[in-house]
Amino acid sequence: MTAKRDARREDLRSRLISAARLRIQSSGLGGLRARDITADAGCALGALYTAFADLDELVLHVNSETLARLGEALREEAAMAAEPSEKLKALAKAYVGFARGNRRLWAALFEHRMAPGVPVPEWHLAEHAVLIQYLVESLALLSPALDRAQLLARARTLFSAVHGIVGVSLEGRFIGLAAADLESELMGFIGTWVTGLRQQEDLEPAK
Amino acid sequence: MTAKRDARREDLRSRLISAARLRIQSSGLGGLRARDITADAGCALGALYTAFADLDELVLHVNSETLARLGEALREEAAMAAEPSEKLKALAKAYVGFARGNRRLWAALFEHRMAPGVPVPEWHLAEHAVLIQYLVESLALLSPALDRAQLLARARTLFSAVHGIVGVSLEGRFIGLAAADLESELMGFIGTWVTGLRQQEDLEPAK
Repeated sequence: MTAKRDARREDLRSRLISAARLRIQSSGLGGLRARDITADAGCALGALYTAFADLDELVLHVNSETLARLGEALREEAAMAAEPSEKLKALAKAYVGFARGNRRLWAALFEHRMAPGVPVPEWHLAEHAVLIQYLVESLALLSPALDRAQLLARARTLFSAVHGIVGVSLEGRFIGLAAADLESELMGFIGTWVTGLRQQEDLEPAK
Repeated sequence: MTAKRDARREDLRSRLISAARLRIQSSGLGGLRARDITADAGCALGALYTAFADLDELVLHVNSETLARLGEALREEAAMAAEPSEKLKALAKAYVGFARGNRRLWAALFEHRMAPGVPVPEWHLAEHAVLIQYLVESLALLSPALDRAQLLARARTLFSAVHGIVGVSLEGRFIGLAAADLESELMGFIGTWVTGLRQQEDLEPAK
């Protein structure tokens, strides 16, 4: 009896997550309404609040799926390239590709805000580690003297820089790169930064 | 008679811009409503639409003022440092300072979107040049072989990277830098990138 009720609840949650994902894909996070999602999922408005605490928690679950898919795309790239500079470029290229192919779901990761005073739950915060974990591995090879905290800060810096270059361009901001220039400029930017890092670390420059 | 009417209209516009600026400063762009702005400015709701085409045009004028103030802050920094690497760092530091001191007005520059299909007017687009013009000057010294189009692309890339590092941190995103690390990481990041640029350009490294 309980098992059956749990299964029904899981089914409802999964239908609501799918419906919310499709709405974000088609119209973005901005106009997301509980009423539309429950209509799409074929349930009553109130059912959303039996399956999730509120609309924000539902969005976190959509973002959780998006992060997992993005993490998978990054993991595949990280597994292929071995040389740190090539790996950082491959990761950035995969990031551009994912953002371009999943524009609104990707944007929702950075646009969503909890209600004032409500913290993002720990389970979801932890999922964001996937955005920097492969950067940390490459940076550790390039800067072997850094401790863990320094590596994390460096990885956050590099991630944010790449995210900025990609984001300002994809949003079509006046000050962003034209779509045609994005990938080559981004690769050049990372290449220059790694060259500087090697120089500072007094390592052999890459062949 | 016409002069008097023009003066009245200018006064109304300036009161509405001030009221909108104060609303954005206190609550951000998200909850901005024409009704609140006109109440604050002491005029009827309809008066907004005699002074501006719509709320979006009013926001553009607030953003225009913000860009002018930001441009002035950058210009002052650019005038002080002469060596390109120091100048780029000083500009980034001024950018962080302005963003920190004008959080919501600064965010509004990047959050505001026109209604679908409505282009941002040329007069406002042109004002964004102030965000990269001082970068272009320093980059031209560092990479003298680049033509104008390449310099502009490089400046857009560097601006977006700095903007990303600052933005992801100030928004308090899980993946951003802690506030205490932002300035030192940003300075280090620019320093490393310029070192790489000098190495690639085969110039003398900075002392």
